[in-house]
Amino acid sequence: MKIIAKGILAAKGYKTGSVAAGIKRQKLDITVLYSEKPANVAGSFTTNVVKAAPVLWGQKIVNQKESVQALVVNSGNANACTGEQGELDTLEMANVVAQALALKASEVLVCSTGVIGVPLPMAKIRAGIASCVAKLDDTNIAADETAHAILTTDTFKKEVAVEINIGGEKVVIGGMAKGSGMIHPNMATMLSFITTDATVSTYYLQALLDSTVVDSYNMISVDGDTSTNDTVLAFANGFSKAPPIESNEQYKAIFEEAFNYVNIELAKLVVLDGEGASKFIEVEVKGSLTKEDARLMARSITSSSLVKTAFFGSDANWGRILCAMGYSKAHFDPRKVSVTYQSDGGTVLVLDKGQPLAFDEELAKKVLAEKIIRVKIDVGQGKEEATAWGCDLSYEYVRINGDYRS
Amino acid sequence: MKIIAKGILAAKGYKTGSVAAGIKRQKLDITVLYSEKPANVAGSFTTNVVKAAPVLWGQKIVNQKESVQALVVNSGNANACTGEQGELDTLEMANVVAQALALKASEVLVCSTGVIGVPLPMAKIRAGIASCVAKLDDTNIAADETAHAILTTDTFKKEVAVEINIGGEKVVIGGMAKGSGMIHPNMATMLSFITTDATVSTYYLQALLDSTVVDSYNMISVDGDTSTNDTVLAFANGFSKAPPIESNEQYKAIFEEAFNYVNIELAKLVVLDGEGASKFIEVEVKGSLTKEDARLMARSITSSSLVKTAFFGSDANWGRILCAMGYSKAHFDPRKVSVTYQSDGGTVLVLDKGQPLAFDEELAKKVLAEKIIRVKIDVGQGKEEATAWGCDLSYEYVRINGDYRS
Repeated sequence: MKIIAKGILAAKGYKTGSVAAGIKRQKLDITVLYSEKPANVAGSFTTNVVKAAPVLWGQKIVNQKESVQALVVNSGNANACTGEQGELDTLEMANVVAQALALKASEVLVCSTGVIGVPLPMAKIRAGIASCVAKLDDTNIAADETAHAILTTDTFKKEVAVEINIGGEKVVIGGMAKGSGMIHPNMATMLSFITTDATVSTYYLQALLDSTVVDSYNMISVDGDTSTNDTVLAFANGFSKAPPIESNEQYKAIFEEAFNYVNIELAKLVVLDGEGASKFIEVEVKGSLTKEDARLMARSITSSSLVKTAFFGSDANWGRILCAMGYSKAHFDPRKVSVTYQSDGGTVLVLDKGQPLAFDEELAKKVLAEKIIRVKIDVGQGKEEATAWGCDLSYEYVRINGDYRS
Repeated sequence: MKIIAKGILAAKGYKTGSVAAGIKRQKLDITVLYSEKPANVAGSFTTNVVKAAPVLWGQKIVNQKESVQALVVNSGNANACTGEQGELDTLEMANVVAQALALKASEVLVCSTGVIGVPLPMAKIRAGIASCVAKLDDTNIAADETAHAILTTDTFKKEVAVEINIGGEKVVIGGMAKGSGMIHPNMATMLSFITTDATVSTYYLQALLDSTVVDSYNMISVDGDTSTNDTVLAFANGFSKAPPIESNEQYKAIFEEAFNYVNIELAKLVVLDGEGASKFIEVEVKGSLTKEDARLMARSITSSSLVKTAFFGSDANWGRILCAMGYSKAHFDPRKVSVTYQSDGGTVLVLDKGQPLAFDEELAKKVLAEKIIRVKIDVGQGKEEATAWGCDLSYEYVRINGDYRS
């Protein structure tokens, strides 16, 4: 597996066009992704009962198990809680793209992200889509612009791509994501888009995506709020000359490793850009009785406001970590737990098999002052493990969200 | 029902003594409550798997269903995650109180609150208990001191007391509570203590407490973290000349109304003093299909970091409220929901049966600039309702928790 450039346009046969349509102030805010050949598609969507109109449309299209050829994404407005008009607007977005590209509306997926409860500015969006389609290209610039066009409060674009060898031929999996706040995905996440030129069936792609989200997007948290618009879409257009992935167990293993890598990296990038975050926290829970227990504990720790503020303050307040494990609904025995903080600043063991240690506070401050911190939990009971990713809770998070709409 | 003064000492036959034993810096940090007659006791404790040593002791004592006569509480140290030594220290606290008051250790309840994972300073605590017992009294000063001695990051004492008439005789129910952070009780809460001079059986008292916590402590949230030490204890010493509460359905109705009132008021006081809180938020959900759905939605709203920061910024970002309802696991139809903000600044309807309204932003700012804000949700589907209480998320919360231990 080789890490390569160009994100969502790294795989063959995909083009994008992006413009600033005026939904946000003078920023790229609408993008169209086009696959030169019909692509199989898999999707994973928010479990929030309040689903944005484009999520309902996306579920319908993905459930048809038919090929698609385009995706349109706007940022700056989530088209959520917008009633019947919201559904009509989503359908119109699909129609406008379909007409411009000589497709059926049912071959066009739609995603929106931004403020909730405000109707879409459809005149701007119609004009924007036309401009996007006119610009469709597969250059480095096109890849850079599309990754920017889907952002909201994000401070950097999030993309990753890898190249693998399948039966002597090159296969590429690339992707891009957005997300910074309202991040606590459940069965899906913020927006994340994956493209591959591999030949895979829709059923295989969907099953793979379903298993991947559990240990990637579903293991990140910025603020505990599961969004109304979370969507992951994976496209496979078969442009690669490589044999079908499903024709060989070894191909599947290689493909799945790369697919997981791309999704986990995108998920980590979202957390790294968590709203107001000054630190990236990786929580590794091992020695758990079951995998699900390990996941519950790891994610409960990264979701705790008290744990997050302690990281912000570089405070080795490990009691809050135990407390968060304790209400995670996971089964474990607190008397067997060990906790270690680790970073470029050093390593400090603070709890050893349930026994609090008189650790070096100076060293702990140094370890926790770093930007990237790893918390290693040994539950001391079994062999299962899981990793979750989160960030600290800062003044900046409060500032950003205290007045998001203005 | 008449609201009266003196909190936990309002009911007959109770005394307290409180001192600054040096666990906290120059503040009252240990208190002993003594009932002149053996009292029936009911308790409700944290559901966190990580239970502090005094919680384990309290559960054991309450489960015995035998009368008790004393309670000792220290603040500044939670005696949680302290291993076997923590359990020995709790037992010793009970023993020291028992010896000083000629009781058995099993007649003494113990509560601790404060930092997690640090051994109790037992020399200070032994001396402190002796001083508390020497000071036992039922004066206004004693009541004021005991309510202060249980506090940690709280900024004011929390107490309430009411007088009711049972069969022509006066019965009093009073209580005090502490709690400001790590507040997201589940089946119990922070620390809250109730005393009454009514004559009630242990079984009745426990059943009443169990039903009360569901709609009082379990409906408040400051930061979503369920503590390791949450405890509510209710004492009934039968000092009143009133007939037994359970001898008459009418007595029960009067007593239960007063008991609920005392617990709900204490729960609300905890949220009003939420760490860093600048606003008190009451969320009233009505028109729900089931009571449990109404509770889930109300509490999910008060627990959302994004909703809380929007209140901090006086931002009428109602989309976040719908989003929080959506991931609450409650059943409802977003297209039927109405949302209104209400305060001394006015009333503003922002969502009407699923339709976003072009509301007056100026008025909304005015409504949300108030200290006490009510959010009224009409789910539009049934007849059940529930109320939850929470607070905003401020810079101050981050500051307080960024360096709690120092």
